[in-house]
Amino acid sequence: MMERIIAPFTELVLRDLDKVEERMRELPPDVDPNLKVAIKQLINSGGKRLRPTLTLLSGEMLGADPERIINLAAAIEMLHTATLVHDDLIDGALLRRGNPTLNAQWSAGATVLSGDFIFARAAYLAAETRSLELMRIFAEKLMVMVNGEIAQLFGTSTGNIRKDYFNRIYEKTASLFEVATHGASLLSKCDDEIRHEMKVFGYEVGIAFQIIDDILDFTGDQEKVGKPVGSDLRQGLLTLPAIRYFEIHPDDPAKDKILNGGSGWDNELEPVIHRIRNSEAIQESFEEARDFISSAQNRLSRMPSGEKRDALFDLADYTVQRPL
Amino acid sequence: MMERIIAPFTELVLRDLDKVEERMRELPPDVDPNLKVAIKQLINSGGKRLRPTLTLLSGEMLGADPERIINLAAAIEMLHTATLVHDDLIDGALLRRGNPTLNAQWSAGATVLSGDFIFARAAYLAAETRSLELMRIFAEKLMVMVNGEIAQLFGTSTGNIRKDYFNRIYEKTASLFEVATHGASLLSKCDDEIRHEMKVFGYEVGIAFQIIDDILDFTGDQEKVGKPVGSDLRQGLLTLPAIRYFEIHPDDPAKDKILNGGSGWDNELEPVIHRIRNSEAIQESFEEARDFISSAQNRLSRMPSGEKRDALFDLADYTVQRPL
Repeated sequence: MMERIIAPFTELVLRDLDKVEERMRELPPDVDPNLKVAIKQLINSGGKRLRPTLTLLSGEMLGADPERIINLAAAIEMLHTATLVHDDLIDGALLRRGNPTLNAQWSAGATVLSGDFIFARAAYLAAETRSLELMRIFAEKLMVMVNGEIAQLFGTSTGNIRKDYFNRIYEKTASLFEVATHGASLLSKCDDEIRHEMKVFGYEVGIAFQIIDDILDFTGDQEKVGKPVGSDLRQGLLTLPAIRYFEIHPDDPAKDKILNGGSGWDNELEPVIHRIRNSEAIQESFEEARDFISSAQNRLSRMPSGEKRDALFDLADYTVQRPL
Repeated sequence: MMERIIAPFTELVLRDLDKVEERMRELPPDVDPNLKVAIKQLINSGGKRLRPTLTLLSGEMLGADPERIINLAAAIEMLHTATLVHDDLIDGALLRRGNPTLNAQWSAGATVLSGDFIFARAAYLAAETRSLELMRIFAEKLMVMVNGEIAQLFGTSTGNIRKDYFNRIYEKTASLFEVATHGASLLSKCDDEIRHEMKVFGYEVGIAFQIIDDILDFTGDQEKVGKPVGSDLRQGLLTLPAIRYFEIHPDDPAKDKILNGGSGWDNELEPVIHRIRNSEAIQESFEEARDFISSAQNRLSRMPSGEKRDALFDLADYTVQRPL
């Protein structure tokens, strides 16, 4: 509620977003009271609800059954919530969206189990869409997301940093956006071509969204973001701005040390973050995100026209217009 | 493979059990190599495969489609494996079935994520059964299982220790046995009454199985079990032998301290474990398990006769005939 995007494109689905939150809050009667409190707190702490908004707009544009699409939107947001609970635990993060994380309040064990419960609840809501195909995709994407986290943890690489980056942001972010739009199409009467287009639409919006997040990590207001500038790079994570910077500046003195992920370059870190932040790599990364959005928006031309389609167009724009 | 039950009732499904293991080993091609090793190791370290055996025998007795029943059996064993990965992490257990646990080898983060991946894989295999009803039940029981763990962690109580105990062993163990037999019936052509009977059959076998486990915690060979006698009670967990003991001996001096779960009774622990172990509570707990098995076996009389039904009868017997 609190943090939701205030934009015209959300207005069309405000009432349905409320239903999605209601669905997320529904729990079996004999759930442990401690867990109930935790889940309530997680849902109250909000988030932009971008994934359910995308799901609802896609489904409503394609004429999906309202009940089933609400279940899908709730399933996707619950899955997103579960991954955040485990990620925050693994990262030892104490705050998210300005609120204490679950692991800041509970033991590791209780946090692991709460995440597990929310995963299970997400799977239950996905089953409530009553689409087998969707269930399969939902489980598949959960594997993709977790596998991405594991690869990141182990620093597994294909040897191609650009490929690694796009793999990683697909696994981390775009895969769930893909379930939102593709899943919505599976709950609607439409042909396979439309479904494919909706799937790629979600993929492209998700990729652009994550690129912008990665740019904001370099350019964002440090106080507002609550993290130091360049926090990804500080953790050894190469994102598009850094990758693009070293493509443009192959002779940068920090290049080899950083790309090889070695240690011993701590005192070179501040200057190189500064160089990346002030380079054309920022604008060029932005252009790459913008290209994904243009491609995504082009796909909408094949969709049924109307206010829902227009709203999806605006939502795509929004992902690359967050304050840079 | 290694630890599998050697009993006539497994012989009927040995080849299908191999197929279940194969299905469990199948992974998407781009799974992280570290995760692949971990999953392979978890599957190799075996286990009795009681849940898949129960699933296969139930499905084959009722004429389920072989492919779908193999998927269900693999899904159930994967789900069981995932819960063990997280449980061992939470308990800080370093050994399981004589092998080092994942958390003994990996960071907590990598262990959490591996468990998550195996949950996702279990959900995927469940979706491969192509039964919506089964998917729903599968997700529901995962919630039940995790909720049980959370309630145990927080010591949540209804105020009735017997009720708490039976709730907990339902959540922890019998719920998944129930999915095995009920799920198998859902993949078979049979009426709702048969499905109900199969569900209760699985429930009863699961409850008996856990009661016997809890008895073995008091009576088992300390070296063989790898845990001290009375390890549950040492952790503050009241199981049937202790509950029954205090029902029979309401004047036992340790009763109040132990039932109220307080601390400060460490030096009374050894003697009370000894008293429980040598009391009639052991035999009476065994009788309770035996009653569940008799009831379960009676239900089989309504099922199609033949070697599969006979094997299920023997499997039920096996659960209460493990060396006491």
